[in-house]
Amino acid sequence: MGMTMTQKILAAHAGEASVKAGQLIQAKLDIVMGNDITTAVALKEFQKTGAKEVFDKDKVVIVLDHFTPNKDIKAAEQCKACRTFAYDMEVKNFFDVGQMGIEHALLPEKGIVVPGQVIIGADSHTCTYGALGAFSTGIGSTDMAIGMATGEAWFKVPSAIKFVLTGKPAKWVSGKDIILHIIGMIGVDGALYRSMEFVGDGIQYLTMDDRFSMANMAIEAGAKNGIFPVDEKTMEYVKEHSAKEPVVYEADPDAEYDEVYTIDLSKLRPTVAFPHLPENTKTIDEAGEIAIDQVVIGSCTNGRLNDMRIAAEILRGKQVHPKVRTIVIPATQQIYLDCIRLGYVEDIVKAGAIFSTPTCGPCLGGHMGILAAGERCVSTTNRNFVGRMGHTESEVYLASPAVAAASAIAGYIADPEKIAGGME
Amino acid sequence: MGMTMTQKILAAHAGEASVKAGQLIQAKLDIVMGNDITTAVALKEFQKTGAKEVFDKDKVVIVLDHFTPNKDIKAAEQCKACRTFAYDMEVKNFFDVGQMGIEHALLPEKGIVVPGQVIIGADSHTCTYGALGAFSTGIGSTDMAIGMATGEAWFKVPSAIKFVLTGKPAKWVSGKDIILHIIGMIGVDGALYRSMEFVGDGIQYLTMDDRFSMANMAIEAGAKNGIFPVDEKTMEYVKEHSAKEPVVYEADPDAEYDEVYTIDLSKLRPTVAFPHLPENTKTIDEAGEIAIDQVVIGSCTNGRLNDMRIAAEILRGKQVHPKVRTIVIPATQQIYLDCIRLGYVEDIVKAGAIFSTPTCGPCLGGHMGILAAGERCVSTTNRNFVGRMGHTESEVYLASPAVAAASAIAGYIADPEKIAGGME
Repeated sequence: MGMTMTQKILAAHAGEASVKAGQLIQAKLDIVMGNDITTAVALKEFQKTGAKEVFDKDKVVIVLDHFTPNKDIKAAEQCKACRTFAYDMEVKNFFDVGQMGIEHALLPEKGIVVPGQVIIGADSHTCTYGALGAFSTGIGSTDMAIGMATGEAWFKVPSAIKFVLTGKPAKWVSGKDIILHIIGMIGVDGALYRSMEFVGDGIQYLTMDDRFSMANMAIEAGAKNGIFPVDEKTMEYVKEHSAKEPVVYEADPDAEYDEVYTIDLSKLRPTVAFPHLPENTKTIDEAGEIAIDQVVIGSCTNGRLNDMRIAAEILRGKQVHPKVRTIVIPATQQIYLDCIRLGYVEDIVKAGAIFSTPTCGPCLGGHMGILAAGERCVSTTNRNFVGRMGHTESEVYLASPAVAAASAIAGYIADPEKIAGGME
Repeated sequence: MGMTMTQKILAAHAGEASVKAGQLIQAKLDIVMGNDITTAVALKEFQKTGAKEVFDKDKVVIVLDHFTPNKDIKAAEQCKACRTFAYDMEVKNFFDVGQMGIEHALLPEKGIVVPGQVIIGADSHTCTYGALGAFSTGIGSTDMAIGMATGEAWFKVPSAIKFVLTGKPAKWVSGKDIILHIIGMIGVDGALYRSMEFVGDGIQYLTMDDRFSMANMAIEAGAKNGIFPVDEKTMEYVKEHSAKEPVVYEADPDAEYDEVYTIDLSKLRPTVAFPHLPENTKTIDEAGEIAIDQVVIGSCTNGRLNDMRIAAEILRGKQVHPKVRTIVIPATQQIYLDCIRLGYVEDIVKAGAIFSTPTCGPCLGGHMGILAAGERCVSTTNRNFVGRMGHTESEVYLASPAVAAASAIAGYIADPEKIAGGME
């Protein structure tokens, strides 16, 4: 019996000719990653292992992106602990304030992750790198510690669900709308501990930023990982960003899948996940005119250049609604620079929105846009659990940058087509 | 006996031909201002007055600048209370996230404050507008409430100290260095409840931004207010920013001063206030090479365009020290836009510093750059009290943007001349 794409990557890293779903394996790790919150915990566990150094100074990555620039004394102390560890261990890929960006945008941009790798990160959205055709998954701080010490981790080989994407999405339908549609369809535990393998002719129409956004949210369906085939766009991206050699894996033709879904992308509509679960989706046509207090455009899900472009294009020459605080956060310093160069920052600030330095901040209720009781936010982030962005009586509506920007102008959840028309 | 400049403004607003030091007066207010922290308290007091509306919708100003974009749920609730009040009372000058900037940069920029006014603000650095030849002073939230209800406030007429500034300051000596030098000379209670009146031929060499920076820190010498004569630069600034009619007051030739200091600006050196008081000043030559962890360039003291220009010029084409988090915060959205247009944001981000949306944030230990135990920060802000920017075991060194930017590159407290030479 053949293997899925994920299984083939795992087999190769476990030194096995073949693996099958349910099997326990020990795999070699190409990258072990943590952020300011999780690394602060992991380094205490690391000390318990007795290891004097990390397994490979080039393969450990620490990014201070969650509560930075330090939001309070506790955050400052956590970052200080991470910084001391990183310098002591001579971690090559340590990203402090000023060099950093949101981890899941930064690692692909810096060429640290490439196709065919096995990557673990002490952050649930580590599954993002599946967009590059890598196996990557979120783990806890203890696994991060062991990973840093040994360069290995154990996995139960996941079974998979195949999503056959066909057709070309309409103008205002992005990767975010596709993944929200899928989560709405299968539920937040619809892919529990399984791989979500995306295939089909529709993928050619998806930008890399679309794919990152989709792989990023695989965890919101409970998946172990989400993964895309490596195509020309992937290879172009990798060539532009990395000196590392990509390894391309393909699913066997006779690979077994638990389920197969075929989705006609041309039929999809902009989609919004209502409070308080990513599976509570409605199309923009069903959403109704829900008044909002805040819009956040950013995060590891949608803080990339293409997301900023869409926001800038919709906001350009317009004004955000005076009662909607509109917070735009580029995911990395490079994206920030690109946004300046392309005029996006100017468009966004002139429209009455704010443009922040990179941070995960508001997505997880950290800082930079926390909600009061009764407030509603349209956000391009990935989770809308109770209290995720602040008060337990606040509400988060997950959407694409296009819907978020259109809603910022309208003052209510709005169809970008109605606010911005068919602009290119 | 003649009156000081401050006394003449107060007399006119009290409807008196003459007032003298120590006299209690009731004065009409041109502007009553509060921020997200102080207004949240003031509006509860306002309700107790039984007033149904504010005395003048055009003369009340509310700026959400301290803990915004909302740093936590408490901040979100405070801002929500301010917002509700501002909309209920139809406060014309209400500045929310996206429209706001740091209050003491925003009010002059928007032309809300002009020469000759009496302004109270529930923020200690309200004395900033003295740079425009206005009487302005910080008051508590209760006085703000009464001011909003009645348009009046009582004052004890202050006596004054005269500072005669002569000569032209050298290239890297700014208003910040002058005021730090003065505070070092007279101490943090050196001007307790008195006016600091600045005069002399040296003022012609000071930009408006220099003067704002100096008047801003009058409170750090304990002064009731700091005030500058209105000259051509002032009138040019006012014409550019405001449609309001300025009223120019001058001190009587026979006005009485408690003390007179003459300061030769050409002799001053870049000056740094060491922990933990603004009076603990040393010249850059006496400072020694003190290693630092963070630099903050911004605040109501030094977050204006000229401050950003100096930072950008020093950072351009260079890299900040990898162990120094360098946080640059423009004081208003307009300054942000000017910084984009002039290429400063690009210079600053390329140098490895971050460029934030406007906020008071780190200055008062709010957010956006809080210090851990043992960390040292060179900051262009106004206070370096114990724990001001985070942990009680952290240290803040107050300096000009030039010294701060030079230190960011060097990794220790550094003379801008040595890092940047005599660049224009």
